[in-house]
Parts: sequence; C-alpha cells; structure tokens
Amino acid sequence: MTENERANETAMNTMADDPKPQTVPVVAVVLAAGFGTRFDPDNPKQLVSVGGKPIVCWSIEAFERCARVSDIVVVVNSKVREEVESLIDQQGYGKVRVVIDGGAERVDSTAAALDTLAQAGIPGDAKILIHDAVRPFVAQSAIDGSIDALDQFKAATVAYASTDTVLLTQDLGDLKVVKSVPDRPNTFRAQTPQSFRFATIRKAYELAAQDPDFHPTDDTRVVVDYLPGEPVAIVSGAETNLKITTLEDIPTAERIAEQLEGFDPKEAARARMHALLAQAAGQMR
Amino acid sequence: MTENERANETAMNTMADDPKPQTVPVVAVVLAAGFGTRFDPDNPKQLVSVGGKPIVCWSIEAFERCARVSDIVVVVNSKVREEVESLIDQQGYGKVRVVIDGGAERVDSTAAALDTLAQAGIPGDAKILIHDAVRPFVAQSAIDGSIDALDQFKAATVAYASTDTVLLTQDLGDLKVVKSVPDRPNTFRAQTPQSFRFATIRKAYELAAQDPDFHPTDDTRVVVDYLPGEPVAIVSGAETNLKITTLEDIPTAERIAEQLEGFDPKEAARARMHALLAQAAGQMR
Repeated sequence: MTENERANETAMNTMADDPKPQTVPVVAVVLAAGFGTRFDPDNPKQLVSVGGKPIVCWSIEAFERCARVSDIVVVVNSKVREEVESLIDQQGYGKVRVVIDGGAERVDSTAAALDTLAQAGIPGDAKILIHDAVRPFVAQSAIDGSIDALDQFKAATVAYASTDTVLLTQDLGDLKVVKSVPDRPNTFRAQTPQSFRFATIRKAYELAAQDPDFHPTDDTRVVVDYLPGEPVAIVSGAETNLKITTLEDIPTAERIAEQLEGFDPKEAARARMHALLAQAAGQMR
Repeated sequence: MTENERANETAMNTMADDPKPQTVPVVAVVLAAGFGTRFDPDNPKQLVSVGGKPIVCWSIEAFERCARVSDIVVVVNSKVREEVESLIDQQGYGKVRVVIDGGAERVDSTAAALDTLAQAGIPGDAKILIHDAVRPFVAQSAIDGSIDALDQFKAATVAYASTDTVLLTQDLGDLKVVKSVPDRPNTFRAQTPQSFRFATIRKAYELAAQDPDFHPTDDTRVVVDYLPGEPVAIVSGAETNLKITTLEDIPTAERIAEQLEGFDPKEAARARMHALLAQAAGQMR
C-alpha cells in the first residue's frame, strides 16, 4: 500500500453494512449558482453535458439515488434558473423541494440555503450535505460515509489525500516563497459533499457573518475557523469526484462518465454529434 | 482573472527576453530510480511510452533542448539501468555525463547525485535542477524560470497553485480530522524541477543526514526545514507538468503529448498498436 493509499484508508469509509435507523431529515443542498469565468459564458458549466447528461443532473441524481437522503434543495443563479427548473421537471426528480437563488459568492449561496431551511422549520439535528453541482461523479459511498460521519461528528467533509507535496507560501514583495511544507499524509484536497448537523453550520455561519474580513471558499472552513472546538471528520473521497472547472476537464469527465451507472451511450453519441455540429457552425460563422 | 490565475501570476515567470550571461555550470539531475508500486512491476513507469516515446526520454530531452543546461546526471535503479543506458545511447543525448545508481527513497537518490557532483568538483555556486523523470512534460519556461530564480534566490521550486481547497489534518484516534484550512492563494502543489545553488542543497542534506527521523518526499522541504533562513522561490508550473503515478494518468498524458513539440504521430500509432497486441496476447494467455 502506498503512503497515499494509507492516508486515504484513515479517512472514514461508509458503514453501509450496518445502517442505523434514520430519525432526522437528511437534506442535500446542491450548489449550482457559480458562473465559471473560465468557461463559455453562454453555456454555464453546470449545464454542459458529459456522458450525454447535463452536469447538474448527474449531481442531483446522486442524491435522488441515495435512499437515506430525504430532501434536495437546488441553489441557482437567475441565468440558469429556467433551464435547471425545466430539467428537474423533465427528469421528474422527486426529492427536489425548492430551487432558490444563490448569491455572489459560494458562501452567499450556502447562507441562502440555510435561511430557506430555517424558514422551513428544519430541526437543529437534521443532517445537511452541501455539494458543488460541478462535482457530478460523487460516489454513493461518499454520500453514505458523510451521513454516517454525522452520527459521530457534527461536521464532516469528503476529501482525498493529496498525491502532490503541498507547499504553503507567503508573500515576499511581489513574489511567493515557501513558508512551510506540511507532511504529505496530513494534506487532503477538499471535495464535497461537506456535511453538518444543521444547528452547527447555522451557528458557524452566524459567527462568520459578524466578521467582514471573512471570505471562505469552503463551508468546512467556516466551522474550522468559527467553531474551533468542533472536530471535522474526513470522509473518503476519490480522484473521480473531480470538480469541473475548465473546458480542459471535460475529456477526463467524459472518460469517468463512461464507466458509471447512468451513462447512456446513445444519448452521449447524440450529444457529441451535437457539439461537433455546433463547433462546425461556429467555424463557418 | 480567477483567484487561481492571480496566484499563479505571483509565481516567478521566465525572464528569457533578457538572459544574463551564464558563468556557472547548470546541471539537471533526472531522478528515474522510482519503482512505482501502483504500476505494472514488469514495466516501470519511467519506461512506459507516451506519445510514442518512453517517459524518461521526454524528461531528458527537456533539458537537452534548453541551451542553458550544461550537464545532465541520470539517476536509475538496477532494474532499469540497462534499458535507460541503451535509450541514452540510441537517442544520442549529448549532455548526459553519467548514469548513477539511486537509493531506496527519493532523497537517497538525490543524495547520491549530490555526492557524485561533489566528487566531480562542481563549484558551490553551480545551479542544480532536480527533476522527477515521471514529469515528462515540463515546459521550457519552467526550466528557464528555475535557472533565472537562482540569480535572486539560492533555492526555487516549480509549483502550481492548487485549484482545490487544501485541508491540513491531524489524527484523532484512528481517524483524520481537519486541523486547519490555509488560504487557497497560499497553497501550491509542488512540481519539479526543484533548483538550488549546489552549496545550499549540499548543506541542507548534510544537516538532514544527522536527523534519523527525517524522511522528506521533496527536496525543497530539506531546505525549508534545515535552512529555515533561506527563502525558496516559487516558479510558475503548469497543469500539464503532471506526475505520472498510476496507469490512470496515461490517457491524460497521451492527450498532453499530442499537443507538444517532439510528438511523433507515426511512432505513437505504432506504440499504441503494440500495446493493444500485448494486451490481447495477455488476455489469450
């Protein structure tokens, strides 16, 4: 076993063989409000198809498929709302309770979802799984592992041990220099879902809201920084749970999609043809 | 510009428009001694072909091609020595001065190379660029940038700003929990080459050798931990400067190879055919 595999082994794995009876709501929040500045502005990345299916559909379906998830909240921006709503209708996603507007930053979108849940009277011990829509290939084991982890911890995040050595840097004039090199077995790349008991993430966000300097890129960090006494568990992620950030990620995503349940080869071929025709039409313009 | 692009901008870029006259030896050390436990044990990863060319050849050629590099030292293990030597002969790599045996760990291989250089009487201000052979697609700009950085610093590493949030973890019993979440613009993934003035890396290794508990995965860390007063500059890396670690990296590597100078489509087709035939033969066994 490599050092990396050993590090991933220490992350929590699902205990699905022995599921506890579920007594609280398990709510998935799918964040699909990002604009993806490095993507085609006319075709936001959450709507791009991989394996013949829009990225946002892959993400919603991952939580539709998990029997332990009771409800789904989808967070969008006004630019994609209409299309996302029509996809949800077409596909008949039965757990999606509401599609809400997000905010300018990722944390604003999470905050909007938490407000909606509070207004809906969700109990403090509900399990909230916050997921980036642009991670379409999240494994069922990561979702199960997140739900399980919240029996022992009040916060957890899916993460994957870094294969590269991570360097922490600091500024030296205009330049970056290395500040420290943490031990590789203790460096993980954060993925999603990031999961919390509702009262815990709500409290952390309330504290963060009072700090004007705080702009986290990550929900876990809100808990780590504002509720430092609260341990956040690491749940086993995977290389395939990638975040689609640029167009260059699409070929890798297509390869992963082909190997997954839910892949529709006919639909994929049709979509590829469509993309090629659109490209050709663009070149003729 | 995204946050990530901004972070990469603060890394040093090559100043190749205004090269200084070169007065010291510039030695590339290509580390090709790893075994790659996650790879086919009968076909070590540094010998696998991508784009029709063995990975180790891509790496050596990157330094052959840079006019400012004066000498190359290749570090191997006994299992691949014969094949690497014959590739060097076949390809006529004119800067390769010596092929030496590495050690059990990465740092042992670096230490062996440093000993060889000392015995050869290399001056203390020589610039030493240490490169992982399994990063075949290092850009000329990264090599130039490394050589330039050593005019201002005594140590530098190529690195690429992390697109993922990095989590630093600690153990809680058998499990990992999050310890802290560093600011993303200050988290970089270390790549190679990692570059040093010879006297600096030699001194750092001498100090490290006296510490039996020290097993770094990275040469930069030896300087950061043992010569803490010595700033290590960050030189702009690239996503394409990937480390080939598992067989799953090969399709990505093939895609990168196709876009690079030095790619031979005929040879690549021949190699692919060869691989398919070998696979078929294996299935018939």
